[in-house]
Amino acid sequence: IKSKLPDVGTTIFTIMSQLASEYKAINLGQGFPDFNPDEKLVSLVNKSMMNGHNQYPYMPGVQDLRFAIADKINKLYSYNYDPETEITVTNGATEALLSSILSIVHTGDEVIVIEPCYDSYLPCIKLAGGTPVLVSLTPPSKNNPAYSIDWNKVKNAITDKTRLIILNFPHNPTGLTLKSSDLDAIEDLIKEKEIFLIGDEVYEHIVFGHKPFLSLSTREFLASRSFVISSFGKTYHTTGWKVGYCSAPKALTAEFRKIHQFVVFTVSSPMQYAFAEFMKDPAPYLNLSRFYQEKHDFLYNGLLKTRFKPIKSEGTFFLLADYSEVSVANELDFAKELTKKHGVTLIPVSAFYKDSSALASNNNLVRFCFAKKNETLEKALAVLSTI
Amino acid sequence: IKSKLPDVGTTIFTIMSQLASEYKAINLGQGFPDFNPDEKLVSLVNKSMMNGHNQYPYMPGVQDLRFAIADKINKLYSYNYDPETEITVTNGATEALLSSILSIVHTGDEVIVIEPCYDSYLPCIKLAGGTPVLVSLTPPSKNNPAYSIDWNKVKNAITDKTRLIILNFPHNPTGLTLKSSDLDAIEDLIKEKEIFLIGDEVYEHIVFGHKPFLSLSTREFLASRSFVISSFGKTYHTTGWKVGYCSAPKALTAEFRKIHQFVVFTVSSPMQYAFAEFMKDPAPYLNLSRFYQEKHDFLYNGLLKTRFKPIKSEGTFFLLADYSEVSVANELDFAKELTKKHGVTLIPVSAFYKDSSALASNNNLVRFCFAKKNETLEKALAVLSTI
Ligand SMILES: CSCCC(=O)C(=O)O
Ligand SMILES: CSCCC(=O)C(=O)O
Repeated sequence: IKSKLPDVGTTIFTIMSQLASEYKAINLGQGFPDFNPDEKLVSLVNKSMMNGHNQYPYMPGVQDLRFAIADKINKLYSYNYDPETEITVTNGATEALLSSILSIVHTGDEVIVIEPCYDSYLPCIKLAGGTPVLVSLTPPSKNNPAYSIDWNKVKNAITDKTRLIILNFPHNPTGLTLKSSDLDAIEDLIKEKEIFLIGDEVYEHIVFGHKPFLSLSTREFLASRSFVISSFGKTYHTTGWKVGYCSAPKALTAEFRKIHQFVVFTVSSPMQYAFAEFMKDPAPYLNLSRFYQEKHDFLYNGLLKTRFKPIKSEGTFFLLADYSEVSVANELDFAKELTKKHGVTLIPVSAFYKDSSALASNNNLVRFCFAKKNETLEKALAVLSTI
Repeated sequence: IKSKLPDVGTTIFTIMSQLASEYKAINLGQGFPDFNPDEKLVSLVNKSMMNGHNQYPYMPGVQDLRFAIADKINKLYSYNYDPETEITVTNGATEALLSSILSIVHTGDEVIVIEPCYDSYLPCIKLAGGTPVLVSLTPPSKNNPAYSIDWNKVKNAITDKTRLIILNFPHNPTGLTLKSSDLDAIEDLIKEKEIFLIGDEVYEHIVFGHKPFLSLSTREFLASRSFVISSFGKTYHTTGWKVGYCSAPKALTAEFRKIHQFVVFTVSSPMQYAFAEFMKDPAPYLNLSRFYQEKHDFLYNGLLKTRFKPIKSEGTFFLLADYSEVSVANELDFAKELTKKHGVTLIPVSAFYKDSSALASNNNLVRFCFAKKNETLEKALAVLSTI
């Protein structure tokens, strides 16, 4: 049979997690915590089920949850979303990405994607009939030890067919965040054109160095053009519950919901009621950056004592490290070997490139997920310091 | 902004459920039970969360659950699906429908859909770039008081571009089921061609008259061409938990999973572990037909004492009734008025037609959902007997 996605295999995250479990490796690959959510949140789910919240909830999401989300965004980013018409609860950020892309990208439209990028973007664009146009982050070099973004390159990629730019900050896998001047640059890029944005902001609450997070929603104009996507999985240590949301102005949300209703129809009722109640306390998300900064620093400092050269991350669950002192193998081979021979699983950064086998996508970098118990990080470091 | 689905509004099920709650009406509209799942199932979800099943499960579904599903299908329908490569757990049947359509329908392909039909089929086909070709069931008449299907009409609709036929039996909204001779007819239709099938079999365990259900999986050849879709929501009274599955031969499943991983990535971990355990006892699904037959008969007999003329259903949560003795309004207007004036919510059958305003789709029929407590059905009948 003729494939709709002939170039696509199984997602790298599944491949590496499967390999990790086959080899009983320490899994610092796929982005999920190896610890549990707050017990109170678990008991709220149980309460929802006992209270009879077991049937289809309202298609755009349970009202209390949409109001809690709008309230949070309003307080943190000062944008006033209307919970009735501008917030939709989704089956995780993955569904929100697909539904927003399907709702805005027409056949022949071009979509600008910043590479390296999360592996669902390009297939979703293809399924929508669009053409991805890739713009690369500037990779680390001797002079600049971190990835950086050159908005002129994005500007040069814009054509009359450009309909959408996908922005993912804090950025997976590099951990890059945006500064106020970046938001200015984005405004300039799209101001005079009919170009929309997706803000994949699933790591919005994980930003290091005591900096506030600059969501697209902090700018009235950018918000008016954006689908802004977040994830309760990343924020509340519940990646397996599959709940996220999409905030977008009324006209965009109307199109989004038309798609959403036929993609999943609605989202788990017991989980939605639980999150609505749990969100009343802002402490869990307000404290998250500090919680993960400790893990980041612990891993970063630990790696400095190995032959891996870590790059400081500005946010997310992740940091990258250069392994060229350990091996000259390409990234995928290196990651597989590391799992098989040493029992530590990482993600090859090349998997975040369209052409993962091209030379440009092989910088001898691997991605570490530090959303793990301290003892897990310690065990991994103990192994890595021997190689 | 230019809509991807310009002809589509909010799904009728959401519209009618919203209207029902606004008017505090008795809701016999949208297809969900107004009672709770088994307490044991609820406590299994709680146990899963306590046991730490809160992070991304394996993308195609938790292993124990895929094995339990394959085991059930094998026993009931004697088809041997390989749980590793042929069963995928989905975010309810809705996601399975989208993912199967997106994985098989290419731009320009024709998809045969039997009308009246569930309202997600046509938008999904459109999103995949396909063209729906509609074949109508023969509506009830003086001589034949139920809907019936004429396979010659389907045969005549087949062209060189036909790639897929969507079959939904037990059928929503008519309750029609297939006989062995229907399966023969379907085999004949596709045998010499490269045409695939979707079997939307979410009501597989709700078939009346002590008849066994004839799944497409009961025929080796049909199964080899089919995505067969089912729903734990409908079977276990958990429509709000959003878990279903798709069974398909290896080559089809490979394409299905490529799409599924970028639509939702994976499905709620605590729910999956709970269903895996709960499925060990076949009694709940083996007893389901009898459970719903009682409700069907109660509603049917009750309606005989009103001015609604009910049509016996062969399966599903639903039966249709003719309201022409009560009103000559079109179906949507009638359904809205009934909610507003009398506090009983039903679904207009016209909503299951592509052109819901066409004359052919207005047969003065409304759909009743009897997946309700007996007292709910009693209350509704008490109201309906007065009008
Ligand atoms: C949906 S699986 C991938 C999780 C994740 O965000 C990552 O590992 O990058
Ligand atoms: C997903 S909402 C619709 C539920 C249903 O199957 C129906 O009412 O027909």
